[in-house]
Amino acid sequence: SAAELLQVLEGVEGQQLKLTDREEELKTACIFIITVPTPINTDKRPDLGPLLTATRTVAAALKKGDIVIYESTVYPGCTEEDCVPLLEQVSGLQFNTDFYCGYSPERINVGDTKHTLTSIVKVTSGSTAAIADTVDSLYASIITAGTHKAPSIKVAEASKAIENAQRDLNISFVNELALMFDKMGIDTRDVLDAAETKWNFMKFQPGLVGGHCIGVDPYYLTYKAEQLGYQPQVISSGRRVNEHMGGFVAGKVLALIADKGTEVQQAFVLVLGITFKENCTDIRNSGVVMLYNSLVAAGAAVDVYDPWADPLKVAKEYSVPLLPEIDYIKKYDAVILAVAHNEFVQIDFEVFRASGAVIYDIKGVLDRSLTDARL
Amino acid sequence: SAAELLQVLEGVEGQQLKLTDREEELKTACIFIITVPTPINTDKRPDLGPLLTATRTVAAALKKGDIVIYESTVYPGCTEEDCVPLLEQVSGLQFNTDFYCGYSPERINVGDTKHTLTSIVKVTSGSTAAIADTVDSLYASIITAGTHKAPSIKVAEASKAIENAQRDLNISFVNELALMFDKMGIDTRDVLDAAETKWNFMKFQPGLVGGHCIGVDPYYLTYKAEQLGYQPQVISSGRRVNEHMGGFVAGKVLALIADKGTEVQQAFVLVLGITFKENCTDIRNSGVVMLYNSLVAAGAAVDVYDPWADPLKVAKEYSVPLLPEIDYIKKYDAVILAVAHNEFVQIDFEVFRASGAVIYDIKGVLDRSLTDARL
Repeated sequence: SAAELLQVLEGVEGQQLKLTDREEELKTACIFIITVPTPINTDKRPDLGPLLTATRTVAAALKKGDIVIYESTVYPGCTEEDCVPLLEQVSGLQFNTDFYCGYSPERINVGDTKHTLTSIVKVTSGSTAAIADTVDSLYASIITAGTHKAPSIKVAEASKAIENAQRDLNISFVNELALMFDKMGIDTRDVLDAAETKWNFMKFQPGLVGGHCIGVDPYYLTYKAEQLGYQPQVISSGRRVNEHMGGFVAGKVLALIADKGTEVQQAFVLVLGITFKENCTDIRNSGVVMLYNSLVAAGAAVDVYDPWADPLKVAKEYSVPLLPEIDYIKKYDAVILAVAHNEFVQIDFEVFRASGAVIYDIKGVLDRSLTDARL
Repeated sequence: SAAELLQVLEGVEGQQLKLTDREEELKTACIFIITVPTPINTDKRPDLGPLLTATRTVAAALKKGDIVIYESTVYPGCTEEDCVPLLEQVSGLQFNTDFYCGYSPERINVGDTKHTLTSIVKVTSGSTAAIADTVDSLYASIITAGTHKAPSIKVAEASKAIENAQRDLNISFVNELALMFDKMGIDTRDVLDAAETKWNFMKFQPGLVGGHCIGVDPYYLTYKAEQLGYQPQVISSGRRVNEHMGGFVAGKVLALIADKGTEVQQAFVLVLGITFKENCTDIRNSGVVMLYNSLVAAGAAVDVYDPWADPLKVAKEYSVPLLPEIDYIKKYDAVILAVAHNEFVQIDFEVFRASGAVIYDIKGVLDRSLTDARL
C-alpha cells in the first residue's frame, strides 16, 4: 500500500528513490525489475500467480526499447516460455524486436549483515547479447563485488534454482543420517562433531526445513524436469526425507512419553517455536506445523509458544493457537525445543525436567544433560 | 611380500621403523593397528574378508593388556560386533578385561601433498574411557594437527563412513543436474560457473564416480541401515544416479554418432582413460568400465587408451584390451575424454575433429570449440 511504501522511504537517505504503487507511473520507466514471491501451491507445484500478475501490470506500461528484468526464483525457461508470451500478448509488442528481457537472480541472505546486496557477486543475463551487456552494466554500477554475465537467461535461471536445492539436499543427508543413527543407537551430533574435524567435511545440521526458499525452490526444478521426462531421484528423495522429519520427531517424542508410562492420548506436549528459523517472525512453510499436526493426530494435547510469531497469522494460516505465555505450572509430559530463538535457549529447562517431562532438543543447542534426546 | 616391505623401508630415514610379514614377530607388539582394504563384493555389499583375516592373524598373537586399533573404513558397530567376537574366539581372551580395542579412521587423501597424515586432525576412540585416552595419546604424539576423541568406537566409525557418503551425494546432485539440464538444453558447467560465484555454493563437478572410497563407503552405511530396518533414500538414490552416468554418457555419444548418419553397430569409438581419476594408476571401481560396457553392448567397436593404467591388470579385472598407442590414422566416429590425465589435455583433438569424430568431454577440461558436448 502507499502507506507501507512511505514507511520504507523514510528509511532511505537522500530521497533519490521514488516509490509508487500507482500503475500509471510505470510508464515513465524504461527498465522494469520484477521481484515477486514464487511460492508453491498445496500440491507442491510452482505457483506463478504473483509473477504473471506483475508481468501483466508491467506489460500494460511497456514501450518500444524497454527491458523487463526478472529477479524471482523460477525454473529454467520460465522467463522466456511463461512471461514473454504474456508480455507480448498484453503489450502488443514483439520480443527481442520491440522489447527485451533480462534475468538476474536475487542472492540476498535475509538477516545476514555480512553478505549484503552490493557485496555479493550478481549473475546477470539478457535476451540478446547486447541486452545482456546492458543488464550487466546496470548491476555492475551498484554491485561492488562484481557481476557474472551468464551466457543465457536459462543458465542464469538455473544457477539460482540449484543453490537452494543443493542446500536442501545437504540437510536431507544429515537428516537421513539422523534416521539411520537413531536405529543404530548413535547420537548424530556426536558423529558430526567428529566428522567436522576433517578439513573438507561440510557442516550441516539435521532439522526441520521450512521457509520460502530452501523447501520451495527444489520443487521448481523437479517440476520442470518431470515435465521434460526426467524423474528426479536425488533432489526428490532429499525433499521426501526433509518433509518427513516433523513426523519422525513426533514419533520419537511420543515413544519417549510412552516409555515413562503415560498414554499418548492423555499426553500434554509443549512445543517451543513455530517460525521457520530462529529469531525471525517468518512462519512460511514452517516445519514445526508438520510436527504439531503429527502430535495432534496421535491424540496428544499440544501447546505451542512462540514470542516471535504473530498469533493471528499462525491461527489463520495453520489453525494453531499460540500460548500467550509459557505455563510453568502445567505438568507437561514432553517439551520440544523446535526453534532456537534466543529467548528459548535461556529458558530454565530444569523446571520441566523436575516435573518429569521428556525434553527433546531438535536444534541441538541445549545442555545435553537436560535433554532426553536430540535430533 | 618381504621384498616389497624392504622397498618401503628404503624410503624411510633413520631406520627406526621395523617392517615384517612374519606372523611370529607380532607377539612382540602390545598395540596392533589394523588398516586393510574394506571393499564391496559384486552385490555391492561389504566384503569384510581382508578385515577378518587380519583380525584372525592379530588374535593369534594377542596377549593380556594388548590393544587392537582399527583404521579401516567400516559401518558403525563393525569393530565391536564383527571383529571383537573373532578376537575373543581365536585368542581365548576376554574383551575389555584381557584386551581392548580402539578405532581411528584414516583420513589420508592419496596424492594430496598439503593434507598429510600429521597435518590432518585424527579422530580417536577406545572400548573403555581409559583405553580411549591411551589411543588418543598415542596418535596425539605424532599428529601435529591434533586429535578429536570421539565418545565411542561407534561414533568414530560413523564419522568416517559419512565423509565419503557426503561427497558421493554432492557429486550425484550435480550429476542429476546434468541429466536434467540435458533435457532442458542447458550446459551444466555454464550453470555451475554462474552458481559458483555465490560465496556458499559448493563446487562439485559432474562425472563418473569410481575408486576405492567414494563409490564404496556409502554401501557400508546403507548395508547397516537396511539391516536395522531403515531403507536409505537420499544416499541410495545418489548412488543410483552416480552408477548411471557411464550409461548416460554412452547414450549421448551414440545419439551424437547417429545424428551424423553413422550406424551405431558400425561405429568406432575411442575412449581416453580408464583409471578412476586423473594422473593415477588406480583402476579400482573405475566408472569408465560402465561407459565401455554400455558402448560395446550397443554394438560399437571401442578402443581404450590409458598410458597410466597397467594393461595386464585392466585385461584381467575388466576384460578390456588397452591400445598401446593412439591410432591417429584410424577414423573414429567418436572420441570420449573420460579421464583428465595431463597427457590427454595436451592431445591435439583437432586431428579427431577433422576426421568428423564426435568429441565428448566428460571432464569439462577441453576447449569447448573442440567438443560436441560435455557432461
